[in-house]
Amino acid sequence: MPRINGERLLADLRRIADFGRYQTGVHRPHLSPQDVESRHWLAGRMKEAGLEPVIDGVGNVIGRSPKTGPRLLMGSHTDTQPRGGWLDGVMGVIYGLEVARALAEDPDTAHLAVDVASWADEEGHWGGMIGSKSFIGRITEADVDNARHRDDGSKMRDALKAAGLDKAPRIELEDGRYRCYLEAHIEQGGVLEHTGKRIGVVTAIVGIYQYRLTFSGIQNHAGTTPMPIRKDAGVAMMRLYNEVMERFPALAGPRSVWTVGKMSIEPGAPAIIPGKAEMILQFRDADVAVLKRLEACLLEIVDAHGKRGPCTIECVNLGRTMPAPMEERLQEALDEAAEKHAGGQHMRMPSGAGHDAQILAQRLPAAMMFVPSIGGISHHFTENTADADIVLGCQVFADAAAKILKSN
Amino acid sequence: MPRINGERLLADLRRIADFGRYQTGVHRPHLSPQDVESRHWLAGRMKEAGLEPVIDGVGNVIGRSPKTGPRLLMGSHTDTQPRGGWLDGVMGVIYGLEVARALAEDPDTAHLAVDVASWADEEGHWGGMIGSKSFIGRITEADVDNARHRDDGSKMRDALKAAGLDKAPRIELEDGRYRCYLEAHIEQGGVLEHTGKRIGVVTAIVGIYQYRLTFSGIQNHAGTTPMPIRKDAGVAMMRLYNEVMERFPALAGPRSVWTVGKMSIEPGAPAIIPGKAEMILQFRDADVAVLKRLEACLLEIVDAHGKRGPCTIECVNLGRTMPAPMEERLQEALDEAAEKHAGGQHMRMPSGAGHDAQILAQRLPAAMMFVPSIGGISHHFTENTADADIVLGCQVFADAAAKILKSN
Repeated sequence: MPRINGERLLADLRRIADFGRYQTGVHRPHLSPQDVESRHWLAGRMKEAGLEPVIDGVGNVIGRSPKTGPRLLMGSHTDTQPRGGWLDGVMGVIYGLEVARALAEDPDTAHLAVDVASWADEEGHWGGMIGSKSFIGRITEADVDNARHRDDGSKMRDALKAAGLDKAPRIELEDGRYRCYLEAHIEQGGVLEHTGKRIGVVTAIVGIYQYRLTFSGIQNHAGTTPMPIRKDAGVAMMRLYNEVMERFPALAGPRSVWTVGKMSIEPGAPAIIPGKAEMILQFRDADVAVLKRLEACLLEIVDAHGKRGPCTIECVNLGRTMPAPMEERLQEALDEAAEKHAGGQHMRMPSGAGHDAQILAQRLPAAMMFVPSIGGISHHFTENTADADIVLGCQVFADAAAKILKSN
Repeated sequence: MPRINGERLLADLRRIADFGRYQTGVHRPHLSPQDVESRHWLAGRMKEAGLEPVIDGVGNVIGRSPKTGPRLLMGSHTDTQPRGGWLDGVMGVIYGLEVARALAEDPDTAHLAVDVASWADEEGHWGGMIGSKSFIGRITEADVDNARHRDDGSKMRDALKAAGLDKAPRIELEDGRYRCYLEAHIEQGGVLEHTGKRIGVVTAIVGIYQYRLTFSGIQNHAGTTPMPIRKDAGVAMMRLYNEVMERFPALAGPRSVWTVGKMSIEPGAPAIIPGKAEMILQFRDADVAVLKRLEACLLEIVDAHGKRGPCTIECVNLGRTMPAPMEERLQEALDEAAEKHAGGQHMRMPSGAGHDAQILAQRLPAAMMFVPSIGGISHHFTENTADADIVLGCQVFADAAAKILKSN
């Protein structure tokens, strides 16, 4: 079985963290100058590892193995959240690179082919998982034309041009090329740490339903408008949110989560009754039946509150991603490798976060593996994972990859 | 009794609305170029009316009558909220000007003296009621030095210099100069309209208690953090607000109001559990005992929620203004004049909004009179009052002023 080189792995992770370093983390949104630089560096490291790298028309970096044996695809993403962590995404890409190197260095596995990918814009600065969606053929040139930056509304096309990628073709998956897709990632939560495990084998990536709720009342003076005649949009929002929090637990599955991460009231002055309020509510579960139950409950609450007034409520669905079950056979290979290197310290678990694997799973058998996040912290520059866990995870991943490629 | 000139009154109101006109309203924050221009125009109109105008060291425009008979002070403010209405404040100033003119034109009242004031910064761009506070001696030069614009943090001193007012002294109230202070204002609410009245005689200006509540939890990933271990600051805020809305009605007086006009959660992304949330809660009543009951209830809720967790709550009092009762004798004069010109169409009512009269009331007997706001709309460019109501109000005000000045 291949032996990964832990020092080389950690050195590569530390080196790529130089691109956009921010305190102990990294600020490297997709197609930022630091992101583009990091893609060229990654392509160079792929080349040194014997892969043939290409940066494609949306920014995907794909290192293709020239070998002709059984082949699998490994990857994740190297872009980050604003002021994000140094491992989120990039760890899975460097795992792919290290696994390719480790397989090549072992005569027993040197014929096995691993292609390694860094998918563009997983973090959604231009839309979300544009790279993996492009790779499986789910987006068109018009989608790229229309993509705008979520913060400043600038065109993705202009950013691609600035990066010198406007002439590059988009690379699409060739049918039959891969046995499967494997992705490793930090957990981004605290389940592994809380349960004393070091490896998580992902059973499914949860589906996410997301709604925008807009409450319209009447803006007025907070001193002169008697309580009975107010139409306070902030109060209407608070009441609906309260009912969601009261009713969802009875309908949820054991791992369901629901969140209001964004809310605002207008005009937002202490002495003005809010005339408008808005919140975004999302809920996640690995079971579509649970998602549908929560959705039905939400719509019922919205309907009842809208009818009761005094504010009107607009309820817009912003997206429904389906839960993506991971391939059982691949989970077993990961279990087995984990048991070998960390006996009893692995567990199966759903992924509460979205990952490129849910996109690839639409065209390929797919699997994911987690390593623990210290304190469960994620999407923050203090995100971290113990070096020993990073190295262990890569070894498990390499073993599982070899096993899968060598199986009939 | 004096006869006011309705056409002249309306013409002046329409003319001053040119300074900073915004749609059907006015954008004229204190010391903006438009505000400074309007003060010079107002000083000119005062001079034409036989008053001796001065613009003082904080921007107060005070037109002093050269007459030596019994004297009263009338005024309000000509600055506006951002994109505010054309009458809020300025109507009371032009009423003062018109009453001074009408008294002078009637031989029976020509000896009576009215000083007219436009108080600086009633709307609080630099602090709130700075002009009237300065006039009664409640602020120091150091306070003016320290005053900063609420939006951009610029210095009031610099704005005064730009307006050419840095060398002007601040004018202070001379003891014994006035019998009383009278202020007219639009109601800014819908009570007069709802009850079919045309004149409101103010019994008291409510006190305002204001609190900032800050909830601290733990920011985390909305997909990977199980519900039971979350410390969601947004949920904590919503729960506390909900309890305030449930418990306040039983403790409130018939005219109490309470409002959350400002709230936010951080970092404010749909997929991130808020680690911090903040809201500003204010409550108003004309009875200090009611304010104290509501305050005690709020503090009890904060304490209970803080103890229950999982978020910590910081509760900071941002201010307590005391209710300001209006002088009974002056209310009677207003009642009487209203009954004469609009029999049965007047009522007594508290003012839910703050006004310069609450400041002046600390040094002088004070009274206020309201005219109806169409649709109760205020602090918005669509604010309006029927012309006939504007004219009626001024006539009532003139009669009351004459009555007060002629009484022994």
